Formats: sequence, C-alpha cells, structure tokens
Amino acid sequence: MLNVITREEAVNLIKEKTAHIIPETEKVNISFALGRTLSQDIVSDENIPPFDRTTVDGYAVIAADTFGAGNAVPAQLDTVGEVLMGENADFTLERGQCVKISTGGMLPKGADAAVMAEHTDNAGGLCLIYKSAAPYENITKTGDDIGKGEVALKKGTVITPAQIGVLAALGIYEVPVFKKPVIAIISTGDEISEEPKPGQIRDINTYLLSSAAEKSGCNVYEYGAVKDKREEIESAVKDCVEKADAVLISGGSSAGARDMTVDIIDALGKAFFHGIAMKPGKPTIFGIIENKPVFGLPGHPLAAYFVFRLIVSEYIKSVLNISAYKPEKSGVLAFNIPSNHGREEFLCVKQNENNELVALHTKSGIISVLSEACGFIRIPRNAEGLFKGTAVEIYEL
Amino acid sequence: MLNVITREEAVNLIKEKTAHIIPETEKVNISFALGRTLSQDIVSDENIPPFDRTTVDGYAVIAADTFGAGNAVPAQLDTVGEVLMGENADFTLERGQCVKISTGGMLPKGADAAVMAEHTDNAGGLCLIYKSAAPYENITKTGDDIGKGEVALKKGTVITPAQIGVLAALGIYEVPVFKKPVIAIISTGDEISEEPKPGQIRDINTYLLSSAAEKSGCNVYEYGAVKDKREEIESAVKDCVEKADAVLISGGSSAGARDMTVDIIDALGKAFFHGIAMKPGKPTIFGIIENKPVFGLPGHPLAAYFVFRLIVSEYIKSVLNISAYKPEKSGVLAFNIPSNHGREEFLCVKQNENNELVALHTKSGIISVLSEACGFIRIPRNAEGLFKGTAVEIYEL
Repeated sequence: MLNVITREEAVNLIKEKTAHIIPETEKVNISFALGRTLSQDIVSDENIPPFDRTTVDGYAVIAADTFGAGNAVPAQLDTVGEVLMGENADFTLERGQCVKISTGGMLPKGADAAVMAEHTDNAGGLCLIYKSAAPYENITKTGDDIGKGEVALKKGTVITPAQIGVLAALGIYEVPVFKKPVIAIISTGDEISEEPKPGQIRDINTYLLSSAAEKSGCNVYEYGAVKDKREEIESAVKDCVEKADAVLISGGSSAGARDMTVDIIDALGKAFFHGIAMKPGKPTIFGIIENKPVFGLPGHPLAAYFVFRLIVSEYIKSVLNISAYKPEKSGVLAFNIPSNHGREEFLCVKQNENNELVALHTKSGIISVLSEACGFIRIPRNAEGLFKGTAVEIYEL
Repeated sequence: MLNVITREEAVNLIKEKTAHIIPETEKVNISFALGRTLSQDIVSDENIPPFDRTTVDGYAVIAADTFGAGNAVPAQLDTVGEVLMGENADFTLERGQCVKISTGGMLPKGADAAVMAEHTDNAGGLCLIYKSAAPYENITKTGDDIGKGEVALKKGTVITPAQIGVLAALGIYEVPVFKKPVIAIISTGDEISEEPKPGQIRDINTYLLSSAAEKSGCNVYEYGAVKDKREEIESAVKDCVEKADAVLISGGSSAGARDMTVDIIDALGKAFFHGIAMKPGKPTIFGIIENKPVFGLPGHPLAAYFVFRLIVSEYIKSVLNISAYKPEKSGVLAFNIPSNHGREEFLCVKQNENNELVALHTKSGIISVLSEACGFIRIPRNAEGLFKGTAVEIYEL
C-alpha cells in the first residue's frame, strides 16, 4: 500500500518522473496554429516596423524646424511632395522641407516627427505648421515594435490570436510547435453500459475526460469502457501504452478495484503513489509503464474531472513546457493613467515585479503589445484617468 | 458623415439590426461538440441517477434499524446477500436485514441509507453496525443529479467538458448546436504585401482576425488583402456578402480610405454608424448589406483586435444566443464552509441572487454540479473551513 501525499508532492513527483520525456515537434501552418504550443523561441530576424512610420495623417517634418511654432507664429515649410502608402520614401528631407504622408506611411530619411493635418494649412507649395513637434512625435521608429534579434515569443507559449498577430508580422507562416500529446482514456466499471438496465449507468468519464484533454491541447485515444476485470484492464492498459503518450484509467470506485489498478501498474511498470490528500480526488494513482505516465482517476465524474484539472493537466503543461502563468483577474495600478475625457478607453497591461499593473505603450501599429499583455483594463468614458493604487478588473484579451 | 456613438449604443444598435437573423442549426457527435453552442434547451427525459445508489463501500440498510447504534451497542442485522456493481437489486429489504454493496451500487427496495464498511463487522451472516445512519445518508436518490423533465442545459450554452459530461450522462450523443457563422475577412491597404519592400508591411489583420473569429466559435472565409481602391474593395465585399454570414473589412487607416468603406457599404446596403467614442477603435463602421452585417475595422492590428473583442464578438454572441455571462474571478462566501482538516479541498461554487458564492452539493456521482458551477474554490489543507464573508479566488473549471 502506497502512502497518501499532498497535491504539491504529487505534482512535483509527476514532473520529476516525466522530466526526461521530450515531446516531438512539428511545423503547422499559421492558419492552424491557434491553441498550439511553441516548441522554440521565435527570434525576429528583422525589425518591425522595418522602417520609420507615421501614426497620423499629416506631414513628415524635421522636428527642429517646428520648434516654437504656434497658432500666432506658424512654422513655414516647403511641401516637397507626398509619400503614398506602401511607397518607398527613398529621398532625404532637408531642413525647411516637409512631405504629405498618411497614417502608416514611410518617413523619408531626415524626417524625425509627424504633424497632424489638423494643425497645418497648405497653401500651394507652402505648409504652415501651427504646433511644435517633439522629435519622434507621432512616429513609430524602425524596430519599435519588435527589434531584430529580439525574442518575440517564448518557447512554451500557448498560441492565442495575439501571438498569431506577431507571427504574421514576422512572416512566420510555418510555425514550430510541439506535437499534441496523445492521451488514452479507459473507463472501467461493471456498472457501465451504453444501454443501461436497472443498476447500470452510462459511461460519462470517457466523454468528460476526452473533452478535457482536447481543451488542454491533446489528442485523444478513446479506448472505451471495460469491466472491472484484471485481464480486461491489463490488456486495455497495454494497448494504450503502445498507442498513446499517457494513459488515464478512470473508475474502479471500490477499494478492491482501485488496488487492482495499482497492481496492474506495478506488474507492467511501477506505481509511485496511490492517494492524494485532496477532496475530491483522494484515490488518485500515478505510475510509469514503458516510460509513459499512467494515471488512475476516481470513477465519479466530478472527482475524475478535478483530478484531470489539478493533476493530469500539470503533467500536460510540464511536458509541453507551458509555463503555469495564468492571467490575473484583477490588479492594482503602479502608475497614474491619464485619459481623454469623453472616450471610453481600453489599455493593455502587464504586471511589474511587484505584481502591480503597468499600462503598455499602445502606439498605433504596434502588435507586440498584445502578446506581451496579461489582459486589458477599461477607463470609463467620463473618468479623467485612473490613479496609482486603484484596483481594476483585468479583462481577457 | 455619421455621428460618433458610445460603445453601448454601438452594441445595442448592432443587436437591434441583426436581431432578425436566425442562425442555422445542426447536430454534431458528442466527440465534436466541445466549444459549440447549444441550439435548444436539453430537457432530460429520464432521472439521473436512474436508481438509488450508495456513495460508499459498505452495507445498504433501513436507517430505522440502526437508530441508537454505537460502539458499545451495535445494531445487529442479517446480511442477506450482496449487490454487485451493475446488478439489478430486484428484491426488497425487510426490517432487520442488510446487504453488502459497493460505491455506486443499486439499493434494493426498502433500503434508505448505507453504512460505511469501516463502521461494521461481519461475522457469518450477522452484520454488526457501530454507527447510526440517518435516512438518505450515503446515498444518491433517483433523480438527485438530474430530474426527469428538468432543463439540464440551456439553449445558448457554450459546451465545455462539464456540459459534455451532462450530455453523456443523458445519453445524448448527437448534440443540437448552432452552425458556426462564417466570418469573411478582408484586409485593405496599399502598404500590404506578402514580400514587403521598403515602405510596405505584411498583412497582420487577416491572420489576427481569423484566429480571433475561430476562437469565438466561427468559421472563416479569408478573402485576403486588397488595395485601397474602390472597385477592388467593392468587389471583395460583394463576394464576401455572398459567401459569408458577416464581413469584416480592416484597414483604410487614412481618413479618405475610411470614407470610401462607408461609401461602399452605403452603395451596396446601408451604413448605421461611423465612429465609436472608444480608444482604440474610434474609426469603426457598421452597416448591413443584403441582410448581412458588415464591419469596418481600423487598420492598426491592436485597434482592429479591440474592435473585434469588444464589438464584433458581441454580434457573434448575440447571433448564437450566447449569454454574456462570464465566470467571476473572485467572490465572497454566502455561508460558512466547514472542511476536513488535513485534506486540501476543492468545491464547486455558483453565485446566489446577491452575487455571493454558494458551495454546490458535491455528493459522489453527481455530474450536473460541474455544469452549474461558475468555477471552483480551494480550501487549504490546514484550514478548518472558510467563514461566511471570506473573499476567495474562483478558479476556472
């Protein structure tokens, strides 16, 4: 008889005993990558954006040319042309010059800021600038979003739409991911029947655990239901160990049946624990057969589900290198956040080292912010911002 | 030029203008039902469990026969046999009798409680019961989990493993669901190129929005990228309106391009708003063409994603009858919750009418609790329970 251990001990033991298992990798097209797990760091081999871009419709300028400009004394610049969207701005802006430019357009060399059209007047070739622009104002610099050589996405990241966006920005259309582990599911119990007669019930666990495994990013090998007979369970386990990466045996609710599962695991491999000090889920079993983890789960569906959610899923995360990180649900602001009165505002946030929330730079055209954020917060339409220390709800991206 | 409206107004207007759209339905096998949305209430036409069951290994008894029993004065009952798992207990227990029974076994008629084996001694045909059993102690009554005629799952429910469990319990292997809406995605912009040259960038929005639509339960018709030219966009929109249930046009970041999108929607149908008082996402457009919703999204990926997440997803939820309900992340207990010292405990909870948390009855063998819960809470191993009013974190099931 094996000892009852705590959940932390169980999770650590499972991680230790499965640490040497290296999941296989494959490449999938970006259109099928949602929900998969990255098998390597994605290092950018280019700058995103690949050129300085404006974030407004207006004029690209040399900031120094606008210093001191105001409504009374506009700066006067020569409009030397227009950069069309998607066009290579392969000329150099000289002092005293500006060019018309649309949001997302490429800045010519020399230009280091952009002025919004509403702060300008254009009369013939002359552009009047009514507002001083600071260097880098209204522009996204080359590499601002993702720098060349930077780790844009980490190995073990579960791919969400945000990561799909980063992959698309980098032109990575074939995505390196871990193969989905195959989880075999055996449901045992003499009372289980597809057409239940008095005293019998339907098989719930095969479907419940299959969908839980699918939701956790696995493929499923449904062995189906077997009777609580040693030879039937043993032959099912042998078949599953051969065909899958891990095996779940649910059922055997009676003490005798549970001991049988432990005996079978010990006969074919080695059982490491039988019993976790948690409720529900006490009669959980873990062992290794031919290098593959085998879990004995309670027969009651609710208990089986909790064991999947709290124990088996830790093995899945571990073998796929998925970090345990889960977005927080609420947090406290690390800084004051000003906002535009009159517009409801949404900001991506991440946690700093003190677990406080920091708003992420959301300059137009930036995509990496989405994948860096743990979620977003909302500033109501009539708020004038949010103060440091405010507790806010974090919404899922 | 259309007026800027608030997000609430935008969402309501979209719901109003798409209220008459009735999504098609289909049946899918339970193995493919995860993540789909139920198109009708699931009414149980049987009781779950279909018979009285014990939740322990031990003896089925008539509770009254055990009243007053204790270690000093055990009740003495005749053991008249054993009910094996899956067996029909088609006899009646008489006063003074008991039968051996395993967890999940069927109670014979007359029996109304079960006593755990550890509180008994069996000598020959005589069973000594050292503990009084209350009526219904250690048993699950017929229909306790799901009653015949009860709505087990509601129309509009997004199917999680918990719901899969309930469907399996009821033997519903062909599940009625709404067909996935097809969302067409058009990315516009003269700067977009698969092989970007200076001044050009890659198409991010097609991939970002496709995966967001997929995650929201839709199928995607990727039209791809088109230039900011009226005839190109117009022909793309016509094609998409024909092939999809809704159309997203992202891009046209410049004011002129955005106006062109409004013009095209107005030429082919009717635009209802252009501009939402939210940041990011101001230049959002909504209209209807041939009875199908058409959304104009900003070109910046981050802004496009927020508009999808906050505006387009509301249309998807509305058309699939998905209730806006999202599990809470933390809550306050409505009652004291006692616990077993020494075991870490997990409990399913739901919210009462005051938004406080109520622990759900988790008697063994109950599956409906999983689908009723908004999540689960944890009672640490060394806590002696949790007091009413305690704020607790709610974990996702």
